[in-house]
Amino acid sequence: MPKLLTKIGVVETQYEHFGRGLELESGAILEPITIAYETYGKLNADRSNAIVIFHALSGDAHVAGIHSESDAKPGWWDFMVGSGRPFNTDRFFVLCANIIGGCKGSTGPSSINPRKGKPYGLDFPVITIRDMIRAHALLLDILGIERPLCVVGGSMGGMQVLQWAVDYPHRTVVAMPIAATSRLSAQGIAFNEVGRRAIMTDPKWRGGNYSPGDGPDVGLGIARMIGHITYLSEKALQTKFGRRLQNSDRLGYDFRTEFQVESYLHHQGLTFTRRFDANSYLYITKAMDYFDLVAEFDGSLVRAFEKVRGRFLVISFTSDWLYPPPESQAIVKALQANGIEVAYCNMDSPHGHDSFLLDVPGFPELVGGYLSGVADEVIG
Amino acid sequence: MPKLLTKIGVVETQYEHFGRGLELESGAILEPITIAYETYGKLNADRSNAIVIFHALSGDAHVAGIHSESDAKPGWWDFMVGSGRPFNTDRFFVLCANIIGGCKGSTGPSSINPRKGKPYGLDFPVITIRDMIRAHALLLDILGIERPLCVVGGSMGGMQVLQWAVDYPHRTVVAMPIAATSRLSAQGIAFNEVGRRAIMTDPKWRGGNYSPGDGPDVGLGIARMIGHITYLSEKALQTKFGRRLQNSDRLGYDFRTEFQVESYLHHQGLTFTRRFDANSYLYITKAMDYFDLVAEFDGSLVRAFEKVRGRFLVISFTSDWLYPPPESQAIVKALQANGIEVAYCNMDSPHGHDSFLLDVPGFPELVGGYLSGVADEVIG
Repeated sequence: MPKLLTKIGVVETQYEHFGRGLELESGAILEPITIAYETYGKLNADRSNAIVIFHALSGDAHVAGIHSESDAKPGWWDFMVGSGRPFNTDRFFVLCANIIGGCKGSTGPSSINPRKGKPYGLDFPVITIRDMIRAHALLLDILGIERPLCVVGGSMGGMQVLQWAVDYPHRTVVAMPIAATSRLSAQGIAFNEVGRRAIMTDPKWRGGNYSPGDGPDVGLGIARMIGHITYLSEKALQTKFGRRLQNSDRLGYDFRTEFQVESYLHHQGLTFTRRFDANSYLYITKAMDYFDLVAEFDGSLVRAFEKVRGRFLVISFTSDWLYPPPESQAIVKALQANGIEVAYCNMDSPHGHDSFLLDVPGFPELVGGYLSGVADEVIG
Repeated sequence: MPKLLTKIGVVETQYEHFGRGLELESGAILEPITIAYETYGKLNADRSNAIVIFHALSGDAHVAGIHSESDAKPGWWDFMVGSGRPFNTDRFFVLCANIIGGCKGSTGPSSINPRKGKPYGLDFPVITIRDMIRAHALLLDILGIERPLCVVGGSMGGMQVLQWAVDYPHRTVVAMPIAATSRLSAQGIAFNEVGRRAIMTDPKWRGGNYSPGDGPDVGLGIARMIGHITYLSEKALQTKFGRRLQNSDRLGYDFRTEFQVESYLHHQGLTFTRRFDANSYLYITKAMDYFDLVAEFDGSLVRAFEKVRGRFLVISFTSDWLYPPPESQAIVKALQANGIEVAYCNMDSPHGHDSFLLDVPGFPELVGGYLSGVADEVIG
């Protein structure tokens, strides 16, 4: 068993059930709702020390720690959470909830549709980033957390942070969008659509009504392979794999996997199908496509941020070509135009969009240092 | 019928049949071989005025003109060919042959395997960029063209130009690699492999033994969609489509095509399946993956170009992220290190990799002006 990095140890996913429905942006009502979440550290007496993490497309509530002693794989942001770490559990109460539409415990297309007694499939309503944060707000209400100290997330998590800041200015102290964008680009939509197309044309998709364990793994694997290429920089792929061959020192002149990068992508596709639901992939990518913070504001990001309060730490990564640094810089400028206090760092990293998931030198220190400073001031 | 831009008028594809086999890099022998080609203009008495065009992945021999009066679609590089155009047919003899492995008249996986009396399918041998230019050389030999005035091509056509220059220094007067690279990057291999995976997992692919008209169109369409995203720049997609909706002014909250960019990609995928063979797509992308000019030279591009003769015009496009300008710049430097005369232009274009197929301002003028100057000097 590999050495565990985690400082959190064994944690359990918790579940909150809401009988009351949530009205979605589409007008549909989603009910009942279950929200899966995990917490680390302790909520202080005045409930002012909460750090709320929003996860990305393939993430879940399991941010840190392990689920059992025999589980070697810690949560997806484990290096950020724990005693002495950026999200310092000696001081903060850290929480992450699985998004609605997901497949890791919160209500999504693989949940049972109470009206039909079988999984929703495509009967699940289309959800948006705003719907996701409304569900997060429901959970925070139940837990009595009115104003989290910080909302933070990378990629689609960063979209949620931005939407939170716009929709809940009175509930924003610190907002930390990382490797984010204020609206998905045409290229982003295009990559998502090819992935969805691969899933929906897989004969095993069956209009979304596949049986558990017998879903469109081939299509989902292809979608993940496409996505994965966009998460890494060209340079990262070159450094990691280059043109090296897998299991051979010469070209085979056939169609078996040959280059290491091919083998790596196949592995990524395959392992993803074991842990993710194809319909959730459709719904979540659709929510990302729909995300456009400026749509209600005549295309003006400055206007979109007019009611925003609190302060921001915006982080981008130099080699991120999916949500490139200029996207973050536009966010920074629009916030500044509204007199909002913004710190911004375009971190030097060769790892592409996925940098936010990695222990990039200086990244944890930046987040931790900033949070610690704000906490000294705000919660003392 | 749209107004034809062509100056060439109606042309016929010609075919040359070779009973003699071609020994491929893999060691396999391909025979017999048919090569489909088109020519425009007239070969001069001393056969010194030939411009040989190498086409890209989805191209063919039909560079210019139309195949019949009722055919509204001119060849793929029509704006470059004709009287007064860069490849000036008043002065030059212009030739383009379909690559072996292709599906537009030259021998490829959809050709009949003489040993089995049915299409080769995956029994077709894996071919390389070098194999392609060897087949081109066979054709030039038959036509009595020892030294073409110019070998030119974009993308995979540019790979062929580079390989030609390395393998046939005594047959090189001008080499013009456009939007090319000296070796496919890990990212390039990755995108190709996802496309191949989409084809090979399509149930209709049937191990490559599909019937004509009943092939893996779904997989091939997905492969083309992926490819197409990489051919255009993010900015081009943004300008062309942005986040505009197709046939609607509001989000539909469903999974039907909605954004224009999605509709565009579906259209690209669909039309491609009508004109291209899925197995050819596998073989040609594999040839690109295998392309590595420096593999035999200990990774040194300077050494790879040691025996090169003639002169070069190298062209890249600023917004090409598939074979980005630094790739061309490395080629230029390595040629210069060998004392080769090189002109280089990184053309300003927002259209991405596909720029070489477009009438980008200054591009035809650059090519035409350069060629004209060399021709004045070389053929008088």
